[in-house]
Amino acid sequence: MNFRKKLKLYVITDRRLKDEIKSTKQALEGGATSIQLRIKNAPTKEMIEIGKEIRKLTSEYDALYFVDDRLDIALATNADGVQLGPEDMPIPTAKEIAPNLIIGASVYSLEEALKAEKEGADYLGAGAVFPTPTKLDVRVIGIDGLKKILESIKIPVVAIGGINHENVKEVLKTGVDGVAIISAIIGAENVRKATEDMRKIIEEVIK
Amino acid sequence: MNFRKKLKLYVITDRRLKDEIKSTKQALEGGATSIQLRIKNAPTKEMIEIGKEIRKLTSEYDALYFVDDRLDIALATNADGVQLGPEDMPIPTAKEIAPNLIIGASVYSLEEALKAEKEGADYLGAGAVFPTPTKLDVRVIGIDGLKKILESIKIPVVAIGGINHENVKEVLKTGVDGVAIISAIIGAENVRKATEDMRKIIEEVIK
Ligand code: NI
Repeated sequence: MNFRKKLKLYVITDRRLKDEIKSTKQALEGGATSIQLRIKNAPTKEMIEIGKEIRKLTSEYDALYFVDDRLDIALATNADGVQLGPEDMPIPTAKEIAPNLIIGASVYSLEEALKAEKEGADYLGAGAVFPTPTKLDVRVIGIDGLKKILESIKIPVVAIGGINHENVKEVLKTGVDGVAIISAIIGAENVRKATEDMRKIIEEVIK
Repeated sequence: MNFRKKLKLYVITDRRLKDEIKSTKQALEGGATSIQLRIKNAPTKEMIEIGKEIRKLTSEYDALYFVDDRLDIALATNADGVQLGPEDMPIPTAKEIAPNLIIGASVYSLEEALKAEKEGADYLGAGAVFPTPTKLDVRVIGIDGLKKILESIKIPVVAIGGINHENVKEVLKTGVDGVAIISAIIGAENVRKATEDMRKIIEEVIK
């Protein structure tokens, strides 16, 4: 599977919902193609220990492993890439420090999307497509906002924000390369099953 | 001034007491020889912006600039080094990722001091010498604990924890290379004057 295809089912950890390592394992068993480690306010040492486990698991399943925000954790755990939002390290700085990391940019408008592509991001996480319970303060761009970004951007785009089993088809039909999911997978009673079901829908739409 | 001498008056920022950039400027005017940027739970972008200002200021004053915990911030702001405690990135990992950074290790016992030296730390921040209002949960090793560390360690040692203008002579007489100070300088009404006074006492004892 090439880089673009490995973005199709992109699962983001959330310790408020479930333990990172257990849920990563179950999501990979269910067919997740990328895992993003996202932790706020934990000690660096703990993040590295968890990141190393996720690195092992994602390698076993031939999935990509990204780290949210923290370039130090990405480097220390041999991640494939780092996900940078508007409040994180500037993309040019990250590329200079870690030229071998894949840089994903979190963007919340067409303007931010164009800027990130120009700065050299390797893919975009664009949203929020729908309102989301895990990030209450986020801007919602909707399906229309997503389409506008897709028309203007050449690098791969992963849609994010409130995507679940019911609305994912509508999102996939816009032509995105993948969907990033937190609650609908990590918050599910059966993470493996929720991932499997999501993967099936994705395979039906993205041929 | 060589590396060891530049550790003699090591001032650590604390935004709960004062703005990092303003207090760094005033501490440098007063004779601080090293500045450590220590921020918890701020966005990465903000830390980098502050770190870049501190880098500029410390270069102007020929002082060293360290970053607490965050290797990514240290790399992004061209710091001289990073300060790593027991809950931060392991020293061997940091040395591998950033072989050119000076690695300071925060140690709270003789055992931790010996381990850090063995792992390749370039200097130690050893304490807490006295109980401290800025870190309530910290272990206090006292003057005796500090002396035991100094007897066993070859790399430079900076004493930390509750050091102020009244007790600093007692600390300096143990033979430490420097003192790390937060409250007695950053918490002072006049940061420049508090640093100046501290520097005078240091110069009297460390010849
Ligand atoms: Ni972020």
